[in-house]
Amino acid sequence: MIIVGEKINATRKSIAQALDQRDEAAIAAVARQQADAGADCLDVNGGNPDREIEADNIAWLVDVVQKAVELPVMIDTACPEAAAAGLSRVKKRAILNSVSLESERLKALMPIISEFDCDVVALTMSDEGPPESVSDRLKAAGELIELLLGADRDLDQIYVDPCFFPVASQPGSGRILMESIAALREEWSEVHIIGGASNISYGLPARQNVNLAAVSQAIYHGLDAAIIDPTAQGMMGIIHASEVLSGQDEFCLDYVNAQRTGYV
Amino acid sequence: MIIVGEKINATRKSIAQALDQRDEAAIAAVARQQADAGADCLDVNGGNPDREIEADNIAWLVDVVQKAVELPVMIDTACPEAAAAGLSRVKKRAILNSVSLESERLKALMPIISEFDCDVVALTMSDEGPPESVSDRLKAAGELIELLLGADRDLDQIYVDPCFFPVASQPGSGRILMESIAALREEWSEVHIIGGASNISYGLPARQNVNLAAVSQAIYHGLDAAIIDPTAQGMMGIIHASEVLSGQDEFCLDYVNAQRTGYV
Repeated sequence: MIIVGEKINATRKSIAQALDQRDEAAIAAVARQQADAGADCLDVNGGNPDREIEADNIAWLVDVVQKAVELPVMIDTACPEAAAAGLSRVKKRAILNSVSLESERLKALMPIISEFDCDVVALTMSDEGPPESVSDRLKAAGELIELLLGADRDLDQIYVDPCFFPVASQPGSGRILMESIAALREEWSEVHIIGGASNISYGLPARQNVNLAAVSQAIYHGLDAAIIDPTAQGMMGIIHASEVLSGQDEFCLDYVNAQRTGYV
Repeated sequence: MIIVGEKINATRKSIAQALDQRDEAAIAAVARQQADAGADCLDVNGGNPDREIEADNIAWLVDVVQKAVELPVMIDTACPEAAAAGLSRVKKRAILNSVSLESERLKALMPIISEFDCDVVALTMSDEGPPESVSDRLKAAGELIELLLGADRDLDQIYVDPCFFPVASQPGSGRILMESIAALREEWSEVHIIGGASNISYGLPARQNVNLAAVSQAIYHGLDAAIIDPTAQGMMGIIHASEVLSGQDEFCLDYVNAQRTGYV
């Protein structure tokens, strides 16, 4: 399981403030906190309506995070300038989050994907809007995988995101999501399947319950990467436990090690 | 989801002690604590190698629990004398846990099932030992359901238990369990499917992680009753959240209500 720490995101007040003030210590602390909790990669989102500011933000965040921890970064933006600014600062590996089939986004990001040797999140959205059915997701994933293979990516450099939509606003969407993950996994054994799991609980009280249940069910169906808060109560524990139950940690060695190192 | 509180069990030291001392207040407190946490039924286990003592224990526990709370009880014993002693004290409904295809147990318990109008847990064990495959479980469940229908039970009075074995001692058994639950649910839409979920984490550290993940995945596959500790951190929350994600709580009303009443 590839754990992408979600906390360095400018939609969070404390991060927006640290960004404004270029407070390196504050960002470095959140980076280390997530690394210590077991993150394998750190998402950086410098969201700002002004593209130049967003690009500056991302570049600064990438520098600060790489100085603080030894982890790859996930460049979280749909803005091509910000993507290029972030990727140009990357020292080791990075994942770009995300390209989709939305034509404007696709057209702007493909040259950047060709320029930089990054892994890529393939978000199953298209000009027809968000995916509804399992087959919507399979179709979008297939087209995106084709495009990314054409841009010299290997299958294991591609992270398909089936879209974790808020279950409260779409009754029945939880089951469709799980079936989509299973169908994607059956079709492509080598691509990663990733999700911004916390989105699924949007609008509900006590959201962490829903996040934990979603991650557990999604891992069973084939999710092997998640953008989550690794410091949230119970999260790393349920991830490792879900791998045990899904037969991905046959002798429970990862689980027991994670417990020894204090991750679960 | 039918929540059976597991805590009044003589294998727990504090309960064994309360039983020895016939400490009614101690047992009543554990009963109320589980009812307050959202239990729908309370398991009572008076386990003792001496059958007469076990029968006395169960009878006393049933009396105490019924005085303390307004919930049905689950009579948890394989000993026919204890089953009869417990069932004879039941004022409202009870579930007998459990009959199996093990011939001695079956022979001893079927007359009691005929005598008392209780619901019954059908444990998918036979003289060939514990079930290994999905088909072992389907076969045992089919035979037990046939027997119980013959003993005038309706399908919704039958709780099939597919056996939550410790995943640490049987690599791969988590996935077989989930597939078994799905297969049972597909075959019989009206029977309940129940499990003593905590058993799955036996032998592992930080067991609650594994219990939560197992319950979440099992609910997705069709589990609709669980023998668990409703007071354990995160348990009721993940149960209600798992129902939301599995499409069993379409507008999240149960989830939101459970949160309001403090269950999640």
